[in-house]
Amino acid sequence: MREQALGKVSMDKLVSLCKRRGYIFPSSEIYGGLGACYDYGPLGVELKNNVKACWWRAVVQERDDMVGLDASILMHPQTWVASGHVDGFADPLVDCKQCRKRWRADDVKDGKCPECGGDLTEPRMFNLMFKTFVGPVEEDAATVYLRPETAQGIFLNFANVMDTARKKLPFGIAQIGKAFRNEVTTGNFIFRTREFEMMEIEYFVKPGSEEEWFKRWGEERFDWYIDLGIKKENLRLRQHTKDELAHYARDCYDIEYLFPMGWSELEGIANRTDFDLRQHASSSGKDLSYYDEESKERIIPYVIEPSAGVDRSVLAFLADAYDEEQDKEGIRVVLRLHPALAPIKVAVLPLSRNEALLPLSEEIYADLRCCWMAQYDDAQSIGRRYRRQDEIGTPFCVTIDFQSLEDRQVTIRERDSMKQLRVPIDVLKTTLEAKLSGESIDTLPPGGSYWLGFSD
Amino acid sequence: MREQALGKVSMDKLVSLCKRRGYIFPSSEIYGGLGACYDYGPLGVELKNNVKACWWRAVVQERDDMVGLDASILMHPQTWVASGHVDGFADPLVDCKQCRKRWRADDVKDGKCPECGGDLTEPRMFNLMFKTFVGPVEEDAATVYLRPETAQGIFLNFANVMDTARKKLPFGIAQIGKAFRNEVTTGNFIFRTREFEMMEIEYFVKPGSEEEWFKRWGEERFDWYIDLGIKKENLRLRQHTKDELAHYARDCYDIEYLFPMGWSELEGIANRTDFDLRQHASSSGKDLSYYDEESKERIIPYVIEPSAGVDRSVLAFLADAYDEEQDKEGIRVVLRLHPALAPIKVAVLPLSRNEALLPLSEEIYADLRCCWMAQYDDAQSIGRRYRRQDEIGTPFCVTIDFQSLEDRQVTIRERDSMKQLRVPIDVLKTTLEAKLSGESIDTLPPGGSYWLGFSD
Repeated sequence: MREQALGKVSMDKLVSLCKRRGYIFPSSEIYGGLGACYDYGPLGVELKNNVKACWWRAVVQERDDMVGLDASILMHPQTWVASGHVDGFADPLVDCKQCRKRWRADDVKDGKCPECGGDLTEPRMFNLMFKTFVGPVEEDAATVYLRPETAQGIFLNFANVMDTARKKLPFGIAQIGKAFRNEVTTGNFIFRTREFEMMEIEYFVKPGSEEEWFKRWGEERFDWYIDLGIKKENLRLRQHTKDELAHYARDCYDIEYLFPMGWSELEGIANRTDFDLRQHASSSGKDLSYYDEESKERIIPYVIEPSAGVDRSVLAFLADAYDEEQDKEGIRVVLRLHPALAPIKVAVLPLSRNEALLPLSEEIYADLRCCWMAQYDDAQSIGRRYRRQDEIGTPFCVTIDFQSLEDRQVTIRERDSMKQLRVPIDVLKTTLEAKLSGESIDTLPPGGSYWLGFSD
Repeated sequence: MREQALGKVSMDKLVSLCKRRGYIFPSSEIYGGLGACYDYGPLGVELKNNVKACWWRAVVQERDDMVGLDASILMHPQTWVASGHVDGFADPLVDCKQCRKRWRADDVKDGKCPECGGDLTEPRMFNLMFKTFVGPVEEDAATVYLRPETAQGIFLNFANVMDTARKKLPFGIAQIGKAFRNEVTTGNFIFRTREFEMMEIEYFVKPGSEEEWFKRWGEERFDWYIDLGIKKENLRLRQHTKDELAHYARDCYDIEYLFPMGWSELEGIANRTDFDLRQHASSSGKDLSYYDEESKERIIPYVIEPSAGVDRSVLAFLADAYDEEQDKEGIRVVLRLHPALAPIKVAVLPLSRNEALLPLSEEIYADLRCCWMAQYDDAQSIGRRYRRQDEIGTPFCVTIDFQSLEDRQVTIRERDSMKQLRVPIDVLKTTLEAKLSGESIDTLPPGGSYWLGFSD
């Protein structure tokens, strides 16, 4: 059935599908938008929540060496002095002397304004942290920053977590949350935005074992994307050169994805050494060491940090899932999302709007949505409704026809193969459960099911 | 076994348990904290995520008249002009002329400074919205606000959602997210904080039907808390008097909970009328009306808004679950959290640290944590470990003893009744699954299980 793959999706097509189907909208669109901010629509929020849930399950629930955390976005300002962000988290910017436009010095190639060709000022450093004021009057109030990374919330809680979670090295703390960077250059849809969400792990290890864990985490995180359906040829692990490293890192891998605009960072795995814990211990005067029972001494753990962007992951999963096929009816657009990520797991489609089909169809819909995110659709032809579900990535459709009223059987139609299977209603849920967890549709459930072949 | 209930928990006890067990820590504690900000520790983040997941499941997944949304925190500043927040979202504050301390005018009773008794200035209005600046230089940059409520992200996306989700009135849009208010008076632990999380529904209805839906949502939301274990006597629905209403509301219920500090708002259900949609339509020049196919006319829907605080809900669930019992070994502290909310569903406890028990215990632990958040604990006596799990609210413990190695059976011990049940390992998962979904422990699973009675 897969007659012709039409090649990699363009960013424009992706943006358009996201808007048209309710995945992602420009933020504040009725007011002309707010630069590089996006809102997740009804399908987008489900996809994003599924990405976060899969990550949490893999790195927290299924491991015995990890606990979670959810620290606040507003933190004590001293945090960012100790972490080096107040001094070091800045971009060099230049101004055009003619049109007064501002640019990142890195983005200017020949010393002239990319817009008007005018002369530029010398680069000046601008800090990327957003600031705000706590307290009712701006002048008196404490200046605080919106965190530019979630990591520091983990370091500040290191001692609290050690005291309560009773973990031994090596162990990690995982966190999902929003961070903010006042970027000058944003763009590529949700790839680089000023407000974004991160999934970060700080994995604490004994000094001397950090090389081994650095390598292991690179592999583990690479495999996570592959397990969730990213094609191997679109993913690569690239080690940083020394001059690419951030101020806190001794070594870094980027997991890069072949986005529509080219290879770009999806996740970074950094060896942050003992830099952050030492900085905060010295800045706060608190003991942030770990008592090692084997060597009978207090040590400052080293830290390996796998840090992933939630929004970038969403973009990668969407881009990788996007497919177009030429068939006799035109072009079929299909999002081949992994079932664990698909926003809607199953759509319930009565063959027509005939009232006789309504009670059974609604009964099945009510039953299925207790288990999964489900959709009901009875508008237009069944063929167009299959196409609509393909385009939003729904792995399975359940069709109720007039024969269903007689024999209490319904048709399951699979997104990827377009194969159809007839099953008794009383095994529908167990069949869907098995198929959503990866079992092939060719495996027939018990109870008189049979094959309908390809009929859509 | 429940010999004596010692009465309602004090806030101090709750704060202390939360810190000691890793539920909730003061934010940036090593730097002396940041006023009224808190971080959720390893157990707290699980509880909070469970609260949010239960809400999402009840209001989005299981309903056919609701879709989700996740809008950005930073929005176009015109949003807050149109919504009335720039003008109206302010508290009257007074300053002490003597000690210069600042107070909410509402909190000052006799016109004198509560601290030093000095004279006070006339009240002046201070806006509660945090502001920040987008763009690299403060002076040139656009001032934007951290949203003080998530609702406006829903109103701004009303047309986008209508176009893509193809819902008919009445339908709702649900959203969970952070909001920020620069409160002068904070306190009562996580009850009133400057950074907090909300679970909001904007439910759009035909004008004329809003009274009915207002009432229905009041009941629905009340029942949600009861279904998740809040005791009926600690919850009440209170209708606002006219002078309590916010600037956008015609009518409002508070769902109030009997917190340790007294009856306070847990959730508000407001009739926001067509105020917000009209304001944004007029301010943006965009059409935010709905075409009603029955009456063949365009209408501006009315809005019923059930708006709940995530952090307040967490506090209410913790306070309501807290219990102390006097028994022969002292006081048993137990968090009787609903199994759907409990951070850890099952703890795996080998009877002792004897190496012979290790392989089977680890095998069971690895198997269970693929299904649920599980904990492994082999430190100290089994009695103390049961108590530790009671105190963090774990509904079930699984104990592996020497006989388990012979007969492949283990003991399930239930938190609330302290009853114990012996089950074959190969029905352990299905037994736990049934018991976690509410089946009584008195129901014996198939396969040779038997009762051990109360033995802890």
